[in-house]
Amino acid sequence: MTRAAGVRGPVLVVGAGLLGASVGLALRDLGVEVLLEDSSPAALHLARDIGAGRPAAAGEEPALVLVATPPDVVAPAVVAALRAHPAAVVTDVASVKGGIAAAVAAAAGDAVDRYVGSHPMAGRERSGPAAADADLFQGATWVICPHPAAAEAAVQDAAVAEVRALAIAVGALPRVMPAADHDQAVAVVSHLPQLLASLTAARLREVRPESLALAGQGLRDVTRIAASDPMMWSAILAANAAAVLPHARALYDALGEVVHALETTSRDGVGAPGVMRVLAGAIEQGRQGVARIPGKHGGAARRYGEVIVFIPDKPGELGRLFNEVGVAGINIEDLRLEHSAGAKLGVATLSVLPARVAELMAHLEALGWRVMVS
Amino acid sequence: MTRAAGVRGPVLVVGAGLLGASVGLALRDLGVEVLLEDSSPAALHLARDIGAGRPAAAGEEPALVLVATPPDVVAPAVVAALRAHPAAVVTDVASVKGGIAAAVAAAAGDAVDRYVGSHPMAGRERSGPAAADADLFQGATWVICPHPAAAEAAVQDAAVAEVRALAIAVGALPRVMPAADHDQAVAVVSHLPQLLASLTAARLREVRPESLALAGQGLRDVTRIAASDPMMWSAILAANAAAVLPHARALYDALGEVVHALETTSRDGVGAPGVMRVLAGAIEQGRQGVARIPGKHGGAARRYGEVIVFIPDKPGELGRLFNEVGVAGINIEDLRLEHSAGAKLGVATLSVLPARVAELMAHLEALGWRVMVS
Repeated sequence: MTRAAGVRGPVLVVGAGLLGASVGLALRDLGVEVLLEDSSPAALHLARDIGAGRPAAAGEEPALVLVATPPDVVAPAVVAALRAHPAAVVTDVASVKGGIAAAVAAAAGDAVDRYVGSHPMAGRERSGPAAADADLFQGATWVICPHPAAAEAAVQDAAVAEVRALAIAVGALPRVMPAADHDQAVAVVSHLPQLLASLTAARLREVRPESLALAGQGLRDVTRIAASDPMMWSAILAANAAAVLPHARALYDALGEVVHALETTSRDGVGAPGVMRVLAGAIEQGRQGVARIPGKHGGAARRYGEVIVFIPDKPGELGRLFNEVGVAGINIEDLRLEHSAGAKLGVATLSVLPARVAELMAHLEALGWRVMVS
Repeated sequence: MTRAAGVRGPVLVVGAGLLGASVGLALRDLGVEVLLEDSSPAALHLARDIGAGRPAAAGEEPALVLVATPPDVVAPAVVAALRAHPAAVVTDVASVKGGIAAAVAAAAGDAVDRYVGSHPMAGRERSGPAAADADLFQGATWVICPHPAAAEAAVQDAAVAEVRALAIAVGALPRVMPAADHDQAVAVVSHLPQLLASLTAARLREVRPESLALAGQGLRDVTRIAASDPMMWSAILAANAAAVLPHARALYDALGEVVHALETTSRDGVGAPGVMRVLAGAIEQGRQGVARIPGKHGGAARRYGEVIVFIPDKPGELGRLFNEVGVAGINIEDLRLEHSAGAKLGVATLSVLPARVAELMAHLEALGWRVMVS
């Protein structure tokens, strides 16, 4: 047994895809011994070749097993790992935790004490070990779900501590919460938005190109995540169906009211009784909801001042802008870059602390930029 | 009658709010005479004081009238302007065109030949003349809808030409299309996404703060426009109810199928027949839809190469990055800045022409940046 960067090794990664190979790379960078398993020899060899670890030698025992297989085979892989490695802590990285925890408890007996579910909230559009990166988890939240069925609290506590150490070692921020709370949370902050982005984008399939030419930043933002992978997302939605369902139903009912209001308006005109209450109510409730999303750095929602800068669309102009902002010593809290269809002009919206807005505008104006406050 | 920057003046702006006062500012910058009217003396005086124009003197006649009142009073204001100024071309800036065109045709008789609807696709979260800016329309699409009921084609053609000249003068890109086509287009590229963003954000109202702490960029993107104004948006949705309705109904039906699939899954497990077809189908159809949104500069969707750069969260680092990109002479086609909740580290995704990816990465790596290809 070895310990490097706070992580007890060797660590066995089961499933050398994007997440597994990225953990391997990050741990190898820290000098932690990493063993690899994958049902695909090609994936295993590729992960080894990029430096994510090596296949285990006969009789070599891991201290920690990370199951990073596709979501639908995680539970049996966890149970198999608990049996095969009776001294090891076992965790997994699936994005829905409740069903796996129940399946492991039902099949693993007392060994469940050594199992801790986790969900590193990082990912990319691409998959497989070729997309792996040691920095994938830098700054990401890594949710850890202690197992409620654990019989020996000390064993489970030690297991949680090992997974926390792993998360911290790869640059993530561990956050401990019950599996049910995790699944409820991602149902509404991740799975429901994915579903509605996809359904909204699906409406664009039969729209004429001339209509799509009027698309602005709003449509692009709402539908960006609709580019996600259907296999992965249908598995996630199915695995978390019970938690997504009440939100999907509530949204279905709210949309039904709006459809009814639109039908009434189409038939009786904009002055039809009750119509404006439903329509304005829907928009107002959305405004209340979006205001609750926390701001940068996990704090409560903060109000930044926004400065809009017009940028000629030629090489070096964005560089010049940011250099000149940098020279002023003002931190940019957030940034949006937009360009209208057909325009040879970009618009950058810089978010800065409200106290710095006037200073930033004066600084940029003095340097010849066209700026306005948002 | 005067003509400056291609625009025949004086131009009378009726309604000195954000859009009206912004047009006034832009035209005054070009030396065009601008007359102002507003039912609110305070708004009128503020618009005059910021330089957007001046109240008309007795007997002064405009060559062009721009009606920029709130949407629900646009039609009577257009009719009144056609009557009051029998030699003037009249246009308006409301974001739904069909209903106004019909109301004007019914009330104005042959004077409808001098009316052309338009929709400058620009706006801000704030309203009123205090938010006005001469640059508001720079690079924006300005839709122009010729009136189908026009009896004398030459009169209508001349009116369209005047409005085109106005759009170009303020920096916008005119795009001529029938009112019905415009209303169909904005129903699906603007009004439906607004509605769904609001309904999705509304689900966050009763979510616990601990759950919201897991919010990522996906949720933020999907719900950003939910911060919009309820009065304005309920009026828009009502005015365009007939065009929004078929899309809202189709989305309602698709969501109903998903709700049914989630119910089946909750009851019978993830292996229940038909469930994966519905869920994967919804995500796949969204993927097909989002792929149809045109890319930058109004062309067909283009594939850029993406380079990811890690940025320490301290003043000047983003400036240093962009300066160093600028020095390399590589144009940044698009940019996304992300930060995970709790992270003291930013991630910038730079989109560049595929041929420049390797060069940009080598350049930045040589300067000590941590980069990876997306």
